[in-house]
Parts: sequence; structure tokens; C-alpha cells
Amino acid sequence: MAIGVSTPRLENREKVTGRILYTINLELPGMLHARVLRSPIAHGRVRRIDADRAEALPGVRCVLTRDDLRRGDIDPYFGPVIRDQPILAIDKVRYAGDAVAAVAADTEQIAEEALRLIDVEYEELTPLLDPLDATRESAPLIHESLHPAEVGYADIKSMHIASGRRNSAGHFKLRRGDVEAGFRAAAVVVEDEYYVPAVQHAALEPHAVLAQVHADGRIEVWSCTQNPSVVREQLASVFRTPLSLVRVVAPYVGGGYGAKTYAKLEPLAVALARKAERPVRLIASREDVFYIVARHAVRTRLKTGVAADGRLVARQAELFFDKGAYADIGPRTSKNGGYSSGGPYLIPNLRLDSYAIYTNKTPGGAYRGFGVPQVCWAYEQQMDQIAERLGVDPLELRLRNVLGEGDAFATGEILHAVPIREALLRAAEAIRWSEPPAAASHRARGKGLACMIKSTMTPTVSSATVKMEEDGSATVLTGTVEIGQGSDTVLAQMAADVLAVPVGRIHVVHSDTAVTPYDQSTSSSRSTFSMGNAVRQAAGEVRDQLVALAAHQLEIAPQDVALADGYAFPKGAPARRVAYAQIFRGHFGMGVGSLMGRGLFKTDGGLDPETGQGKASAFWFSGAGACEVEVDTETGAVTVLKYVGVVNAGKVINPLLAKGQIEGSIVCALGHTFFEEMVYREGALVNPNFMDYRLPTAYETPRELEVILLEDGHRDGPYGAIGVGEPAVAPVAPAVANALARATGVRILDLPITPEKVLAGLRERPLAGTGREGRR
Amino acid sequence: MAIGVSTPRLENREKVTGRILYTINLELPGMLHARVLRSPIAHGRVRRIDADRAEALPGVRCVLTRDDLRRGDIDPYFGPVIRDQPILAIDKVRYAGDAVAAVAADTEQIAEEALRLIDVEYEELTPLLDPLDATRESAPLIHESLHPAEVGYADIKSMHIASGRRNSAGHFKLRRGDVEAGFRAAAVVVEDEYYVPAVQHAALEPHAVLAQVHADGRIEVWSCTQNPSVVREQLASVFRTPLSLVRVVAPYVGGGYGAKTYAKLEPLAVALARKAERPVRLIASREDVFYIVARHAVRTRLKTGVAADGRLVARQAELFFDKGAYADIGPRTSKNGGYSSGGPYLIPNLRLDSYAIYTNKTPGGAYRGFGVPQVCWAYEQQMDQIAERLGVDPLELRLRNVLGEGDAFATGEILHAVPIREALLRAAEAIRWSEPPAAASHRARGKGLACMIKSTMTPTVSSATVKMEEDGSATVLTGTVEIGQGSDTVLAQMAADVLAVPVGRIHVVHSDTAVTPYDQSTSSSRSTFSMGNAVRQAAGEVRDQLVALAAHQLEIAPQDVALADGYAFPKGAPARRVAYAQIFRGHFGMGVGSLMGRGLFKTDGGLDPETGQGKASAFWFSGAGACEVEVDTETGAVTVLKYVGVVNAGKVINPLLAKGQIEGSIVCALGHTFFEEMVYREGALVNPNFMDYRLPTAYETPRELEVILLEDGHRDGPYGAIGVGEPAVAPVAPAVANALARATGVRILDLPITPEKVLAGLRERPLAGTGREGRR
Repeated sequence: MAIGVSTPRLENREKVTGRILYTINLELPGMLHARVLRSPIAHGRVRRIDADRAEALPGVRCVLTRDDLRRGDIDPYFGPVIRDQPILAIDKVRYAGDAVAAVAADTEQIAEEALRLIDVEYEELTPLLDPLDATRESAPLIHESLHPAEVGYADIKSMHIASGRRNSAGHFKLRRGDVEAGFRAAAVVVEDEYYVPAVQHAALEPHAVLAQVHADGRIEVWSCTQNPSVVREQLASVFRTPLSLVRVVAPYVGGGYGAKTYAKLEPLAVALARKAERPVRLIASREDVFYIVARHAVRTRLKTGVAADGRLVARQAELFFDKGAYADIGPRTSKNGGYSSGGPYLIPNLRLDSYAIYTNKTPGGAYRGFGVPQVCWAYEQQMDQIAERLGVDPLELRLRNVLGEGDAFATGEILHAVPIREALLRAAEAIRWSEPPAAASHRARGKGLACMIKSTMTPTVSSATVKMEEDGSATVLTGTVEIGQGSDTVLAQMAADVLAVPVGRIHVVHSDTAVTPYDQSTSSSRSTFSMGNAVRQAAGEVRDQLVALAAHQLEIAPQDVALADGYAFPKGAPARRVAYAQIFRGHFGMGVGSLMGRGLFKTDGGLDPETGQGKASAFWFSGAGACEVEVDTETGAVTVLKYVGVVNAGKVINPLLAKGQIEGSIVCALGHTFFEEMVYREGALVNPNFMDYRLPTAYETPRELEVILLEDGHRDGPYGAIGVGEPAVAPVAPAVANALARATGVRILDLPITPEKVLAGLRERPLAGTGREGRR
Repeated sequence: MAIGVSTPRLENREKVTGRILYTINLELPGMLHARVLRSPIAHGRVRRIDADRAEALPGVRCVLTRDDLRRGDIDPYFGPVIRDQPILAIDKVRYAGDAVAAVAADTEQIAEEALRLIDVEYEELTPLLDPLDATRESAPLIHESLHPAEVGYADIKSMHIASGRRNSAGHFKLRRGDVEAGFRAAAVVVEDEYYVPAVQHAALEPHAVLAQVHADGRIEVWSCTQNPSVVREQLASVFRTPLSLVRVVAPYVGGGYGAKTYAKLEPLAVALARKAERPVRLIASREDVFYIVARHAVRTRLKTGVAADGRLVARQAELFFDKGAYADIGPRTSKNGGYSSGGPYLIPNLRLDSYAIYTNKTPGGAYRGFGVPQVCWAYEQQMDQIAERLGVDPLELRLRNVLGEGDAFATGEILHAVPIREALLRAAEAIRWSEPPAAASHRARGKGLACMIKSTMTPTVSSATVKMEEDGSATVLTGTVEIGQGSDTVLAQMAADVLAVPVGRIHVVHSDTAVTPYDQSTSSSRSTFSMGNAVRQAAGEVRDQLVALAAHQLEIAPQDVALADGYAFPKGAPARRVAYAQIFRGHFGMGVGSLMGRGLFKTDGGLDPETGQGKASAFWFSGAGACEVEVDTETGAVTVLKYVGVVNAGKVINPLLAKGQIEGSIVCALGHTFFEEMVYREGALVNPNFMDYRLPTAYETPRELEVILLEDGHRDGPYGAIGVGEPAVAPVAPAVANALARATGVRILDLPITPEKVLAGLRERPLAGTGREGRR
């Protein structure tokens, strides 16, 4: 049995010996190196670009500017929802860091030097740095016109991009029940505003692309992308090439967390390779990465009405996603944040509005949790604020309202396999919720908890092929990207289980659009569920063929054939076993050949654009977190003594990998909780590097970090499994904030929770057992 | 309609711009360069190898010797039929050129220099340079023991490798009727001995391998091989690794003609990469190539009994294939030559023996025609000798005996689609057979003809996958190697036809064992037939799915759906058409996804080892050639004034490519006819380079070169097609020899036909209209 076993990652040895190849390691004969010139100003018209001196520099092979993009032979704009992002600035620059020109040269150093020889003349425009400013009638338009993407995302196209607000890149609305009536009926109404700043994904591997355009126009791209199929569609659209002639390969990817979804540097690298008629490798510097994509800053206005018995009766939410300069997948992120802002609670009356508003900053894109951590930061603090107002225990308040099996979600759909109640109880138990924290001089302690619910990408498509060789070993062809999450291993485990061979005899070929069948994306924690189903189905097709051949050879009925460990035998008579290799020999002329199986998994869904009612998700992630914190009341420093993350996995395919993902989620979220923030001054990002932008280290990891995996199986999941990559992120910051408030009375509503903010809060109010109201 | 159209090769632009990548162009990060030390002696024991000085040379990263191969962790012997070839010499060297040691270094120059620092001490043994010497009882054994290969070729394993003769590597025998009775009943018996020397394949691209062994033991190899699947099996066997963990990729290959079938340098390159823990690229020098493989020299003893009316009644043949030092695929080549030595004629009584005998020379392997050109050289001259003896026209004699539809071949199987009679008549007509050649002073002219029949690899397996993308473009995944023959184009034409899309929307992914399903080999002119069937089937599966989805969308029955040019519509109502992309959108959640189709084509066959009766071939190649030559009776120079090659294609998929292949075959065979020969002196090859080993140039190409393609369709062929790569080769040399004999009376029985041999023949007999007996 290969399922439920902590199989070591298949690529372990390759990784620890340093021999594995990432995109940045790839080389092609005659390859050039590229660098990108970025705008120093946040908003302006491009008056003139003079690249003559750069082109004359020895070793420079190609300088690309807007002149190369306006010839009509390509469409220079791309974007998965709105085609608003030019490969290089054409008429305007829209943020400090916007790409203006690029150079391909014999070395990266020459390319870098050439950038300094490009003269660009700008006419500065007023930069819009806050969504609320950007929606004002007097604000300039960042995009004068918008065009929807040609491919995919039909559900987004039906959304109102135009919200009636200026500089809108999306407006999701959900209407359920009668919110005004709900508020009127409520005993208590709590209202507040919460803020989460833009943060970086900080994958160790920067964005990197190796592009080649063949003499016949065929495009080949190696990229550390999370969704090669979508990038292929985007490149096909930009370069007007049939999909079959665009190949996108994702080698092993060194982390993504959403930053590597949808086209980023790929169109630029291809445009350079096309002009240079040479392969071009473009590796982002760390500073570049800060300009490529960020997690959306979100401002959430949340108002909740509660009955005297603690039941939530109404909620109104207004979310402002700071889109940055280009839409990227933001309209969909803000939609996801929108319908999730009711939280994992039964609230009969909802009025949720989520706006994505263009600003002159680094574009916001997908990030682990896809809009949910930002709204969870709001709704889970508000739950504690309500509990405080009502004088009930925060756990008790949650248990009174939490959604469960068979309940309707905000979108109206019926939930299944969402053990949030159990998650809360397990988290509370692990943190000894009912026991008061130990007190110490100048060291206030408190416990806090939070829970969450999240959708997955819906509708969605995954497909896979399985090929069994004549020695019974097998290859899985999957579009899933091995991004460090262990997907190769988990999918191999499933194939091994179905085919009844050891995992070591399975090889996984991942994410090469020329050869792996379609997969939508390695994101949204969807691979174990969607691709797992596709792989099981594909392996099942091979198994069926194998069983039929074995039945023929054993002269028994197919239903009487058993498979185990590379052998087929009559059920109950393992001594009569025949090796798979022998079955192949019996079938194929010379004992050689392969058996092929196909798998396709797809889900339907969609929401009504006026009411947000319908089906948002094929399944739901859920989980909870709880922690105990210690606050140094002299410095404001907050230490997490213990953190417990509880996640429903449906079924744990590989305990080691699942726990690793959740531990990673928690540590990642502690960074957001305590210090990560992209800081802008006068439109310019001031900390685009890992000296000024801090990441959590082992030092900030709680000494006690406990992971609890629930196995409330989903009826559509492979072995009941869903995914575990994201649900542990969202509860971390609100659980810590709730613990801080319970320890000190200080409620921080805007992330990160810095010692300065804590100290300021402590100065406003003397040390108290519980906080009452927030500080912003 | 994509079939029967001269679609330009898909890779044309890549090739003519020089941007295409062959194996020799590939690079991997950290790649080392390798060179091979080869034995200077033809036969000897290896006493001592001292590599210390080589290992100490700066820049040398790995020296590989027998010490690395005898540790028991790998099986150092390989071979597709007999595991007789060590990766490097272990106990003995068996020919001058046998690989003894190899070096991987930072540059090829350093590796070359290091070779000179390796000291090897040999104990010389008597070299065996002729098969007849090697079979003597007193001859030393070249191989003390033999082990059959583990994979494939079950039909060969059942052959008598041991023929009762010493140094045997194979003995094929065919027994049909009563040969002695046949000879007794014959009016005329003609007997002679014919010889064809070893020649080189002379592919422009030398053998090249780029090998990488991952930290987890996984093997990746890029090689200019013709049969990656078989090389994968051989590597899996040598390195004891599951097939799924051995990946063999064949990039575009610069010609093979059989030289690149089965493992050649691949095991050595992998062994180097494994020891060096770095990628290793091994490119053979032109001299190396002469030591890797050759076309077998063959001596044929042929005795034919003929009735007074010209009907052939009995034949006895003894073939001696000069195997060289290792078996390679020779036992199968000699088997093919064996059952083909009856020729394309109805002969009721046959006794055919074909021996493969080890000698101390470059191993013989597959070469265009696979043993048939050597025996055709014999039997087609003997036909003219018989005609002369009987005083009948050589064409007439052939037409009286030639096999046709429904006739039994020597193996007993019934022939189909073998229009040899038509081929002879078309060739004769084109050469104006009935008109006597013009005479000129000192310039004798004559016309000659020859015909042939040849089997294809049987049993055999080909499989393919077709993947249609959401814009209706499609990818064909095929194990067929694009070796210059145009297979990508022809397979794309078939897929385009089935899918009803333009050929330009088809991309072909070829020959990567990790992703392309099993294909046995790109050889034996089998791809159009076998892989064509597999591709059509795979495309058909996609078409069926597409039609079903279109029927659903159009609300009609599937059988009422028509497809054309990327659209589906109700038959007779093209105005109601829907684009494939629209059909995808209707089916997949977000309009994205791929449709997969699988194709598997396999044939059965096999011959009884005692009688050679059974089924030798899934289909039969046939053709004829005719020429007019002019002989300078003062210099002995023979000029081919006109050559006509006739080949049955079954159905011509791409006229341009088919004609190109046949023209290439003819020019190639003219090289063998007039000057190609590997010359040995005292066991050493004296002309291992293109200065001393001449190849035909445009100068030797006949001014009139006519290609006639017949379309006698095969019931099992895709559109009736078979293959055209080989059948034009075999008739060339005997047709020229027959023309020479008819012009001068000089009959040359041993190739090549040099001016010296012609002059010597002319001196023996004065100029005459027809020759009577041969000269050897």
C-alpha cells in the first residue's frame, strides 16, 4: 500500500546533492543573457526612448523597446483576465518598476551595462498609491481602456470589471437575505476596518525564463511557472501562434506561492529571443522580483450584526484590493476574498462587495490563500471583538456559528467535508484553551484562535497520461509542477497504488505542454485533488488493460484477477502469479511495448454576477489555528510560544509531506504577522531586497509547532484527499492578534504586528486581561 | 486533403538556417567531453592497463577502464541479440579499433591528450580476418562464451546461434521442397560465388551521445540513435535500472542508414557520466565511426537449377556474413539475407543457409537493405548468367519466374501488394530495354536490370499519442526518429488528414522514451506503415471524441457530423459549422483542456527454426532498377548514363519526400557499386577516413536519374502505404554489373566494380556483346 505512507520525495537526492536543475541553471547553445530596464517613476507618459548607445555596446545582441512591439505582427498586451499589461511600456509607465526596455547580450554584465546607456524621457503624471484615492472622480485613469483576455476565465468575464468606481479592475458582489433587516434585528453590531499590506512571496528561486523561437516560428520556453498551460495560452495569444507550436516547460521550481502563476517574464523573454534569433535566458534579480508581483494589500470594512444568543445574523463587507498597476489574476483574487468574507459561519443576511482598484504600484497577484488571509485577518478578529462585546468565550462563539456538513455557504452551495468545528476543538485542546496562561513579570501571556474556509479553483480541468513499460515500471505524465510541495511523490504514490507496483518504479514527467496533457494550474492547493483524480483514472485505464491481458493469460475472468507488487494472479492463488513483464511478452510481438492510460478530471461551477449565488468551489479547504503568545511589555516584542495548525486533508497521502507543507505555511504566515511589508515612499518601493524586507527565520519559528491533520474525506477526492498547501496560512495572523489582545488588551488591526505598534497600544491602555476595541 | 501532397518538411527552415540542434550541439551545465582509446591490434589479451598518468592530467575528471566495469554493480556486456560486447575491453580486444579506455575531461583536447598517457599491455593472438578461416577447427575462439540478450528478439533466440561451425554468431536455415531432386530435374545448373565487401554508412552526423546520471540513479541520454526504445532496454539491462527511470531522447538525427540502431556509444557515455557524476558528451570522430559499425561483408555461394523452359526449379545458397568482432544485430541481418536469397522468384525447392561468423574486424550491423543488397548482388547476376546460358532475354527470364499477388514466398507465406512484374516492365520501358544501346568507339554501352523483394521487421510494435489542444491544433507524440527521411512531415500529414486541420497546426514530438509511447525502431522502412497506422489510430480516437462533442453541441447524431479545416458541421450544412475551439469551450469548464488519443499497431510473425517456414514479414517491399552504362574500354571506367529506380510505395503520402529518399538510395548504392570498400591490411583498417574511403558525389550521379513510384496499396497500410527507404538500393549494383556484362562480356562478381577489375576482365577476353561466365 503506497497511500498514507511517508515516502521520501523522489527528487530528494537530486536536491540535497545540488545536482538538480532549475530554470536558472539551464543553458542552450548560443544563449544570450537578458536584463530589464525599469521605470524610476510611478506614473508617467513615455516621451522618447533612445537605445542607440546601448545597441552599439560590444556584446549587445538585441535591445527591445516599444518600437518592436507596435509593428502589428504581435499583440503586445497580455493578462489572464484583462489584457492590460504590455510586454514593455508602450505609452505609459504605471509603477516604479514597470518594464521599459530590455537587452539581450553575450553576458549578463554587458546587458546590465547596456541598460545604463538607454535614455528614456518621461512626462510625470500624478501617481495613485491608495485604492481609495484612485476611485475618486478627480483621479487620473491608470488605464484609458481595458480589453478582456481571450482565453479562459469565463466566469470572470461575466463579472462587472467596471464597478461604477474609477480605476476599477473588478467588482464582485454577493447578495443574500436582507442585510438591513438583519442589522435591525441584531442585538449587537460590531464594525471595524482592517488592513493587510502588500507582501512578497519570497520564493528562493527568482522568476527565470529561457526562451527560444525557432526559424519556423515555433516557441519553446522553460520557465519556473506554476501554470505552463496558461502561460502557453498567453504566449499563443501574444505571438499569434497555434497552441501546439508553443511549448512551455516548467522544470523543478524553487517555490512559487502564487507568484509564478500566469505569464510574468515569459512574453518579454520570447520577444527578445524572437528579435535576437537566439535563445535568451532572463533571470530576475531579487529587486526585479519585488517589481513583478506582490500579494495584494487589502483594506476590509466589516460590519457584523449578532443576536443576543451569539448567532451571527447579518454582515456587510467592503473589500478594497490594491490591484497595483496591472490586473493579473487580481479580479479573481478579489472575488475569492469577496465571497469568503462571510467566513466559515452561518450568516443568513450578507452584503459583500469586493473591489479591485488599480494603483501605481507593483501588481498584486495570487498568493497562498488567494485573498482569504487578508479577509480572515478581518473576520477572525471581529469574531473575538464580538465575543468580547457579548462576554462569551471566543471558542464558544465560533462553535455556535460555524458551518458544517450540509450547511449552505454564503454562495448558497451545500458544504461537504468541512470539519471546522472539529478543527477548532482539536486546536483548542492542543493549546489547552481552557487553562489560563501562566503569567510572568513584564511578560504578558495570552491564547488566541482562528478558523477559516477557502474555495479551490472552480471550474477546473486536470488531465494525465500513464504509460507502463514492458518491465512493469511506469511513467506518469502530468502537467502538475513540482514546486517543492512534493507533487511528483504524491502522484507517484497514487499511480503505484493503482498499478500495484513499488513507488520506486514510477517516474513522473511533469509540466511540459508539448507532452503532458492539459492541467490548469499548480495552485489553489488543487493538485492532489484534481490531478490526483486524473492520475488515478489514467493509471486505472492501464490497470484495466493489464488485468484483461492477465485474465487472458491466466485463463480466468478479469474480475478474478488480483494485482500485487508487479504480479498478477488469480484472487486467492498468489502462487499462480505472472510478472507484468511476462504479461507484456504474451501480448506484444517481441515482448516490447507500452500500455497507455488517459485521465481527465473536470469540475463545473460559477456564480451569478448579480448575487454571487451558485457554486464557487468543487470542494472546500478548512482549518483552524491556535496559539499562546508572550508579550514583552517593555519592548512590545511578541513571541509565539506554541502554535497549533489544524487542517482537513480529507486523506493524508504522505504524512511527511503534508506536515511539511503545513509547517511551512505557518512559518510563512508568521512572517506576515510580525514584519513583512512592502513599504512605499512617494510612489517608490523602499525595501526591494532581503536586507530591508525581513523574512522569518528558524529563530522566529515557535519552539512548539504542532500540526494536526484531519481526515474528513471528500466524496470526490482521490482516497478522499483534498489539498493542504494553503488552509494553515490564514488563521495565523488573527490567532496571534487575538492572543495578543487577550494577553494585553491591545488589538492591532493593521498588519504587521510590530513591537512599535504593540508598545504604542500598551501606552494607550494599561495592561489588561482582555482587549475591547481595536487600534489602527 | 493532406495525403499525396508534397508538403515541405516541417523542419526545413530550422535546417536551412542552421539553427536546428543535433546531439553534437547539445550542452548541459557542467558537461564533460569524452574521447575513447581504441586497440591498435586486431586480437589479443589485455594484460595490464595503467591510467595513473592520464588521471593526473589537469582537466581530466574521469578515466574509465575495465576496473570500473567489473565491480558487479552493473552488467558490462550488451548486444541486442547476444550480450557479447563489453562497454570497454575486459579480458580481450577483438579488433583493431575495439574500445579499451575512455576519458572525460573539461575539453575534448584534454581528453584526447589523456588517451596518450594510458599504458596498455597486450598479448597478441592470431587475428581471424575471414569467416572461412574463422570456422576452421584450428581457429582460436574470438568469444569463449556467449549469452543471449535479455530483451526482445525471441525469434532470434530460438535460432541456432551455434551452427556447428566455429566462431558462429548465427545460423539461419530454410528448407523447402527437395533441392537435390530439383537439381536432378533441372536442364541447366548455374553455380557461382559472389562477394560484397564491408562498407560504411557514412552518415554526415557521427555517433554522438550526451549522458547524465542523476543522483537517484536515473539515467538520461540524448543520442542520435534510430531506436531509442531498444537503447533504453539495453541501458536498463546494463545499469540494472527500471525502464521508466531510463530516458533516451533522439534529437533530429543527421542520417543513420542502420548505423545508429541498437546501443553503440550509449553504455560507455552513461558509464562515464555515472563515474564522473557529471553530464558527459561523447562525439565520435570520423575514424571512430569506422570502428563502431559497418555493413557486413558477405560471401554468397549460389547454385540454381533451371528447367528448359526457364522456370527456376531449385536453389541452394550458402551465405557467410563477416560478423566482425561483435554480434550486434548481425544474426538477424544474416537471417534476413538468408530467406531473401531465393530472390523475388517462385522456386519450389530451396536449401538456404546463412551463417554469421565472428572475425577480428569492425562489427557488422544493420545497413539500408539489411542483408538484401548483398544477396541481390548474387541472385540478380545469377539470373543474367542463367539467361545467357539459356539464351533468353534477362527481362523475359525474370518475368517467367517473378513472384506476384497470391504467390507463396520462400518462407511459405502468401504475398500481397508486390508488383515486381510491373516494376520490371516500367523499369524496362523507361530504359528502352528493347532498343539496342548506341555504340561508340572505345565506348561500349549496355543495359542491365535487376529486381528485389525485402521483408520488414516482424513482429513489430509501434504506438503513438495524439493530443489536441483547445484551439484545435494538435501534437503527435511518436517514437519515430526524424532522421532526415521526413517522418515528422509524413506523420503530421496523416494526423492532419484524420483531424481535418491544416498540417501547419500539427506539431510532432518525436522519440523521447519518457514521453513518447513505445516504438520499436526507425529502421526497416517501417515508420510510414507501422507508425502511420498508430498515428492514424491515435488521431482517430481524438476525432471520435471531437465528433461526439460536436454532435452534442450541434444536437445531431455523431454519424451526421462532418469535419473540415478545423470546423465541425452537419453533413451537407457547412454553414452551421462550429470551430473546434468552440467545441472545447462547450466541453471543458473554462474552455481549456486537451483531448488525448492512443494508437497501437502491432504485427505477429515468426519462422520455424528448422525449416525457415512461417511468416517473415508484415508486408513486402519490392522494386526494380534498370540502367544504361557506358564503358571506356581503354580505362575500364564505367559511367551510368541513365538509371531508373522503381519502387512500390503502396500509396505515396508525400511525393517530394518519397522521390528524395529513392534518389538518395540510388546514389548511395552507386557508391557501393563503384568504389566503397573498407580495406584491411594485416588486421588493420587502412582507410578509416573520407580521403581514402571515397563516397559518391554529384559528379557520379547519373545525368538521367528517374524515379517511378508504384501504388499497389497494401490492405494493412495507412492509405495503403508501405515504406520506400530501402527497396531502391539493392538492384543498383547488379543492374550495373549486368549492364557491364552485356556491354563488354566482363562479369564482375566481387564489389566494387573498379576500372582495374574491368580492365583486367577486358584483357582476359576481347570485347564482346554479352558475357558468358564470371570473373572473380
